Amino acid sequence: MTDRETDIPTPVRERQAVRRRRARHGPAQCREQILRAARREFVTHGFAGARVSRIVSRAASNPRMIYHYFGSKSRLYVAVLEDALASLHRQELQIDVEHLEPREGMLQLFDFMTDYFEQSQHLVRLFSAENLLKAKYIRKSSRIPEMSSPVLTMIERLLVRGTQAGRLPQGLDGLRLYVLMVALCQFHLSNVYTLSAIFGRDLSDADWRRDRAADARRMLAAFLKA
Amino acid sequence: MTDRETDIPTPVRERQAVRRRRARHGPAQCREQILRAARREFVTHGFAGARVSRIVSRAASNPRMIYHYFGSKSRLYVAVLEDALASLHRQELQIDVEHLEPREGMLQLFDFMTDYFEQSQHLVRLFSAENLLKAKYIRKSSRIPEMSSPVLTMIERLLVRGTQAGRLPQGLDGLRLYVLMVALCQFHLSNVYTLSAIFGRDLSDADWRRDRAADARRMLAAFLKA
Repeated sequence: MTDRETDIPTPVRERQAVRRRRARHGPAQCREQILRAARREFVTHGFAGARVSRIVSRAASNPRMIYHYFGSKSRLYVAVLEDALASLHRQELQIDVEHLEPREGMLQLFDFMTDYFEQSQHLVRLFSAENLLKAKYIRKSSRIPEMSSPVLTMIERLLVRGTQAGRLPQGLDGLRLYVLMVALCQFHLSNVYTLSAIFGRDLSDADWRRDRAADARRMLAAFLKA
Repeated sequence: MTDRETDIPTPVRERQAVRRRRARHGPAQCREQILRAARREFVTHGFAGARVSRIVSRAASNPRMIYHYFGSKSRLYVAVLEDALASLHRQELQIDVEHLEPREGMLQLFDFMTDYFEQSQHLVRLFSAENLLKAKYIRKSSRIPEMSSPVLTMIERLLVRGTQAGRLPQGLDGLRLYVLMVALCQFHLSNVYTLSAIFGRDLSDADWRRDRAADARRMLAAFLKA
């Protein structure tokens, strides 16, 4: 307790503390805490294996709050998927390749993707599991179809600029290129356990990953030069 | 009933029929039928969701037979994983790139992989689900660590021959190259539902896949030329 606090009469201090708690634990914070706990639960156990009771206990919340903010377990899961994509898109919007030489711009987008997926393996796991469910829950989302991918837009703009300036090969398609780029920076993550076990090598090893990422980058660079 | 059959005395005919049935439904066939039914069940429902009762009914077998041949549900699942890898390896052994120009040999391996995974999406699904289980069941297998990948061996031999002859870039590593090649021909399959839903495009469309595969092949070719 600081001197400044002791100067304030007790009832006032209490009202201030309540306001601070509300600010910390208001509706937005409460929803956010549930969402974070849910993400961890769905990433670990998948949709079917996830337990609302564990989410509630990790979020220091109660089932009523989950149903109040999200409606159901499946709508909470949809919100987790939406949130993961929205976070990716927010980060993507920080990238500026508008003034770069087109091929260099493309490689910088690739570097961003490589780093982002390495650091967001929960995203890789979440969408890998959702694909096994045939994207049933993504298709229930009203937000996801309305989201546009900033990186896809940037790739398309770089392609237009690069082909006009003769700096990139003609005839490339934005979405096809995007899917190849994600493949190069995500496949070793979404198969790390199986590949490591099958080949008896630890593919999560930092040196292995660094060398693999360098190969992948050179592969993309060679393709864009061709 | 043919004339020839009517010439044979009834008890002999019956013994022959039993022998024929045994040949068709002998231990190997029975085990194979269970394995095939199990593969379908695990591919569709994953390990946790799979039901022995459905496997038994599809294989026209009984639980006793499953436990007789495999020991348990989890050992049956391990056998399905082993069988999927063994089938891949059997097909790989049919490829001959020994006498091809090294870069051409590498591209032919890539064409094989592209076709094989396109036609074996059950394999992609099975190993995608097994990765979510952190390869728990692959690590229970005694056969898988002993299996060697014929394609990986071929890639390594092509690399040695190609770099010696100055036909392939120096410093490439076999396993890293293999993982990049599989990424290029498998990622769009193991994420087909999610990518299609997120981007509002049908990535299972045959034309889209053909164009994507051509891009991927050109990407690999450019990398190997660099």
